[in-house]
Amino acid sequence: MKLYSYFRSSAAYRVRIALNLKNLPYEYVPVHLLRAGGEQLAPEYRKLNPDALVPTLVDGETVLQQSLAIIEYLEETHPSPPLLPPASADRAYVRAVALQVACEIHPLDNLRVLRYLVHELGVTEDAKNGWYRHWIENGLTSLETRLAADRRTGMFVFGDEPTLADACLVPQMFNAQRFRIDTARYPTLQRIYDQASQLDAFARAAPDAQPDAEP
Amino acid sequence: MKLYSYFRSSAAYRVRIALNLKNLPYEYVPVHLLRAGGEQLAPEYRKLNPDALVPTLVDGETVLQQSLAIIEYLEETHPSPPLLPPASADRAYVRAVALQVACEIHPLDNLRVLRYLVHELGVTEDAKNGWYRHWIENGLTSLETRLAADRRTGMFVFGDEPTLADACLVPQMFNAQRFRIDTARYPTLQRIYDQASQLDAFARAAPDAQPDAEP
Repeated sequence: MKLYSYFRSSAAYRVRIALNLKNLPYEYVPVHLLRAGGEQLAPEYRKLNPDALVPTLVDGETVLQQSLAIIEYLEETHPSPPLLPPASADRAYVRAVALQVACEIHPLDNLRVLRYLVHELGVTEDAKNGWYRHWIENGLTSLETRLAADRRTGMFVFGDEPTLADACLVPQMFNAQRFRIDTARYPTLQRIYDQASQLDAFARAAPDAQPDAEP
Repeated sequence: MKLYSYFRSSAAYRVRIALNLKNLPYEYVPVHLLRAGGEQLAPEYRKLNPDALVPTLVDGETVLQQSLAIIEYLEETHPSPPLLPPASADRAYVRAVALQVACEIHPLDNLRVLRYLVHELGVTEDAKNGWYRHWIENGLTSLETRLAADRRTGMFVFGDEPTLADACLVPQMFNAQRFRIDTARYPTLQRIYDQASQLDAFARAAPDAQPDAEP
């Protein structure tokens, strides 16, 4: 398999975690989102990903986009170890946590969105950073409330093994820390993040461990 | 089953479509997003949905959030008629189209986001509407490019039966038209939208057909 990735992309980071958890080797193809006006916009890459987003996973003849669709695909084609629990109600819970990150937090803090704020709406650097923090803090507060109260929370989001939800939560926590948000205010999330970071599958997926990492 | 819904919520609209396609009867519980400062913020409702978002589906003891997680749950618990095709590569494709709507378009045009633009960033009404149109047009252009070129496109997004992807696309097209975006510029999407609108399952799910609809 070939993964088109950018070291700092949160969506690519999710897929790297899933591939590692499933012990699936892959070739890493870097797509630099900032260099040369954005390599994701090159016509060659857009043939693989018309949305001009990373990641893209290529598995033989199959070209896959959207991180959560890619992880569901890996779950169906390589079911072991599972990244979703067996019961439908639990699967829905894990997916809902993953979607809380993927739909309610991440899209608002995307590079292209931050650029629109600055270039089209003319907001100041401070207001842009305030926006960034607002949506992360809002989303992490909701998640903390949910996970702190739910009896399914264990060492990880769901019980004691990592799932799709951890593959989404960890990159979001990493991002929050990168933007100097005090994640200790979310003790349950922080504990899960620390726990996950000790696993080889998560450590090898981290931005700094990628071949295209920059200081 | 009980669906906590708001007639104009695009995410609730997706779930209504899925419930109807699967011929599942449900009790409709309106949650007015604008009245009384937002009924979704009431402590009672937040017990069901800590994110204070609609929809929530309650199935017996099971409380479900996030529209795509809810639809996957319905797909697992009531597999017929299916809303995902059988092959994993095709399922990934249908999910990717659904996520293109759910992650790349819809989150940017949410009520709370538009409010933040106006109240916190002080952008003008015109600039707010420009933002709204920008993300819808950007996303629909990508989707049109993708669906116009893909051999899997049929009467619906994937072949000739509606799937999860149509359940996401149709509410987004409805929204676009509501905001006077000329959807005829997306002929493949427009054709699918028109086709779907003729099905009873989609017509009964439309905002204007809901018990809490307002003129």
